[in-house]
Amino acid sequence: MDLDPQRTIAELKQLRELTGDENGAQRVAFTDTWAKARAWYRDLLKNLPVEIHTDEAGNVWATLRGVSDKALIIGGHIDSVPNGGWLDGCLNVLSGVEILRRIHDEHRGKPPFTIRVVDWADEEGARFGKSLFGSSACSGNLDMNEARGLRDKDGIALPEALAAHGIDFENVKASGKELVNAAAYIELHIEQGPVLLDRDLPLGAVLGTFGVERHAITFHGQAAHSGSTPMNRRRDAFLAAAKMSEAIYQISERSGEGVCTIGSCTTKPGIVTSVVEECRITLDQRHLDPTKLATMLLEAREASERFANEGSVSVTWERIWQIAPRPFDKELIDLCDDAIRETCGVCHRLPSGPLHDAAEVAAAGIPTVMMFVQSLHGISHNKIEDTKEEHLAQSVVAFDKLAEKVMGWIARH
Amino acid sequence: MDLDPQRTIAELKQLRELTGDENGAQRVAFTDTWAKARAWYRDLLKNLPVEIHTDEAGNVWATLRGVSDKALIIGGHIDSVPNGGWLDGCLNVLSGVEILRRIHDEHRGKPPFTIRVVDWADEEGARFGKSLFGSSACSGNLDMNEARGLRDKDGIALPEALAAHGIDFENVKASGKELVNAAAYIELHIEQGPVLLDRDLPLGAVLGTFGVERHAITFHGQAAHSGSTPMNRRRDAFLAAAKMSEAIYQISERSGEGVCTIGSCTTKPGIVTSVVEECRITLDQRHLDPTKLATMLLEAREASERFANEGSVSVTWERIWQIAPRPFDKELIDLCDDAIRETCGVCHRLPSGPLHDAAEVAAAGIPTVMMFVQSLHGISHNKIEDTKEEHLAQSVVAFDKLAEKVMGWIARH
Repeated sequence: MDLDPQRTIAELKQLRELTGDENGAQRVAFTDTWAKARAWYRDLLKNLPVEIHTDEAGNVWATLRGVSDKALIIGGHIDSVPNGGWLDGCLNVLSGVEILRRIHDEHRGKPPFTIRVVDWADEEGARFGKSLFGSSACSGNLDMNEARGLRDKDGIALPEALAAHGIDFENVKASGKELVNAAAYIELHIEQGPVLLDRDLPLGAVLGTFGVERHAITFHGQAAHSGSTPMNRRRDAFLAAAKMSEAIYQISERSGEGVCTIGSCTTKPGIVTSVVEECRITLDQRHLDPTKLATMLLEAREASERFANEGSVSVTWERIWQIAPRPFDKELIDLCDDAIRETCGVCHRLPSGPLHDAAEVAAAGIPTVMMFVQSLHGISHNKIEDTKEEHLAQSVVAFDKLAEKVMGWIARH
Repeated sequence: MDLDPQRTIAELKQLRELTGDENGAQRVAFTDTWAKARAWYRDLLKNLPVEIHTDEAGNVWATLRGVSDKALIIGGHIDSVPNGGWLDGCLNVLSGVEILRRIHDEHRGKPPFTIRVVDWADEEGARFGKSLFGSSACSGNLDMNEARGLRDKDGIALPEALAAHGIDFENVKASGKELVNAAAYIELHIEQGPVLLDRDLPLGAVLGTFGVERHAITFHGQAAHSGSTPMNRRRDAFLAAAKMSEAIYQISERSGEGVCTIGSCTTKPGIVTSVVEECRITLDQRHLDPTKLATMLLEAREASERFANEGSVSVTWERIWQIAPRPFDKELIDLCDDAIRETCGVCHRLPSGPLHDAAEVAAAGIPTVMMFVQSLHGISHNKIEDTKEEHLAQSVVAFDKLAEKVMGWIARH
């Protein structure tokens, strides 16, 4: 059986039909629709001689035993955000299935290495606000104390929701044994941004996932009457915070490929007749290079202090979250680049702004790479998320070439 | 009986004792504490041969009949904001009482003109969000339809609260007859800002009250993932809104004495991982000169459109409120200046940023002027509101001189 990318596209549409509605994909992890999607997925695999099992963290593994126990892992996630897109996550899983079929046939049921497709549990974190659940349990990075306390909007705790799907929360890290023979990990994903779209390229090789520094910055000034307070007597917290907006664009530009975002701004007392006494903004900074990420953070701190001084206000910083950059394997990036060039003539290398399960696998020390396919509109996590079918087909072809190349690479190591 | 400013200070302290607590003055209009303050005030007047009556809008008038019916009106308000200062409003009323005593004695009970002290009802608008209630009813400017629908935080309608204090809402404009013989109106008030403090001057002559233009400005961009969206692809509503902050400082500076305030900022979706799609700010602009106020508004509109274009976002404006500047009478301003110079050697002329009842009286066509006394800290509507006793005493002396000069002015007209 030859590789048939059109079958993958047809299966993606079938899954959309089964688990989406007029608002988009509804495969939120640990819900009935998610369970329905996974039942459909298992059904799809039944014609292949693969072993299927669910690990202690709820990740579903389809394993085609090879001559060697050394395994090439192809990863993805069938779960989605509420009102999500039709490709995010499941493109990876279903192209993995197609590659399993091709390898099974080509190697008459016994490839040189073991090939595994994993459907990670709850990549999105849509219900409990904690992404990469299954992969971080498997990699060992999951913070058990933090996760134990997570509750959904109805007050249901994560351990309780897991139990309803047959998962014992306290034992989820036992899933780590799945990685014992892992020799390499590859993942195909829609880009979720406009970089490939802007360059009019179908595919890109991913350099790694950005490190993230996330802070709340609060400027403290003095409330004062909007009518009776001369401009030069004001200690205006909003003025200092507002100056940060242009500053982060300059900081990003200096950093090369980094991005900075002020996503929210709140003001106190927040009334039309008073100078702002307190202004809180959130700042999200991302870069693939840890040194440059640290520089971006430092420059933002310095800018905030300069603006505070200029306006006779004070400023305080509070860290919300951080994660280190997760660069992918240099040799696998080269192989990914080759696979893309052989498929469509040209490749662009780019970092990933969003996190992916691949970042957790890379953190566990497994050589890892991702391939991106162009997103129309540069939009994801939305029902308008889309990719040209031509590009989807190219992505399955290139991803399959990558799998083949990585098997060769494993053989050489 | 000579003018005794120390008595005024003592009475102010007595009122503070009676109607304040550890958080400040609590004489919110149409409450029991306000009624208690007014009962105390009436008691204070009982030794004077004045007629006391409450008009249809709840304003309390103390009238010392003169040879002529032509009246000099001294105005103030005994109501305060919740947790207010000890001087805002009642300094005017109690210095008026002291002037009544002095004039009564000096003219042996029959001054050449009628002298009236009015305690306006609900200057602050603290309970119903509508300031200058009593004076705007009297001037005829009160918007009856708007006022009829006002409710306090407990859902009580303004007409109902008025009825509890013996006032028939539908008849409040009948109070306009009180102004029939009004020849001039004067008001003493704490500055509520830092202008006199910065110049180290006790007293100032007020040129009029600022006109106000109040708008909500909303920038509309595009939500986008904070990790996957390159900086040059963003349509960031916060960036455009933030640029307005520095712009309004420049616009104010160009305007001379105008002030502009962005008092609140809200962001949607307002999450740390998304570029801001919608950012709404409020803009309050004030100037004494209507042409310059219009220019400030125009410049702010132009700036908002420029920033929107620069960031590929759109902008919409919505008027929240406006009021025209209310310049005071030129000749009375000169007399006020004279009275201040005779009292403390030097006078500064300044506009009033906050509105006052005097603005309503001026709008009704009565020659009007106000005198300001320095505010310590430049702060008002707060328990820390204060003025040096030395300055309070000077204010009563100068205000009394102004009353005498205005009587002379009325005689010449």
